[in-house]
Amino acid sequence: MKSKATFYHAGCPVCVSAEQAVASAIDTSKYDLEIVHFGNARNRIDEAEKLGVKSVPALVLDGGVYHINFGASMADVRG
Amino acid sequence: MKSKATFYHAGCPVCVSAEQAVASAIDTSKYDLEIVHFGNARNRIDEAEKLGVKSVPALVLDGGVYHINFGASMADVRG
Repeated sequence: MKSKATFYHAGCPVCVSAEQAVASAIDTSKYDLEIVHFGNARNRIDEAEKLGVKSVPALVLDGGVYHINFGASMADVRG
Repeated sequence: MKSKATFYHAGCPVCVSAEQAVASAIDTSKYDLEIVHFGNARNRIDEAEKLGVKSVPALVLDGGVYHINFGASMADVRG
């Protein structure tokens, strides 16, 4: 069974760069990768914060949160 | 031709967690993945800093530097 990978971002330049590089490097034979853009999916903000996402871009692999560089804080995302 | 992915770390707990999750999620059909542990490879510190690595753990994909969470600064690694 594949594991779950979720890449959370907010469309910021740092996010887009990370999405293009990191998200595209994920082994999709092992992971079901979902890209969540908070600009289009504000209803996912609570879920991300509960998982421990503090800033974007962030990659969640099997429940572990990996913040990648720093684009914006979740407070900024929430606005 | 495969692209190059280098995961730099220093053996810290944050590094080990990121190595297990992120490095193992990299698609090795697309990337030649090298893991560099500065504890065993202090001669790679200069190279990493020149690439723009500011802290560990960090993943370098095609020359782009992606700092993953924060384990230690390169100043700490250099000691």
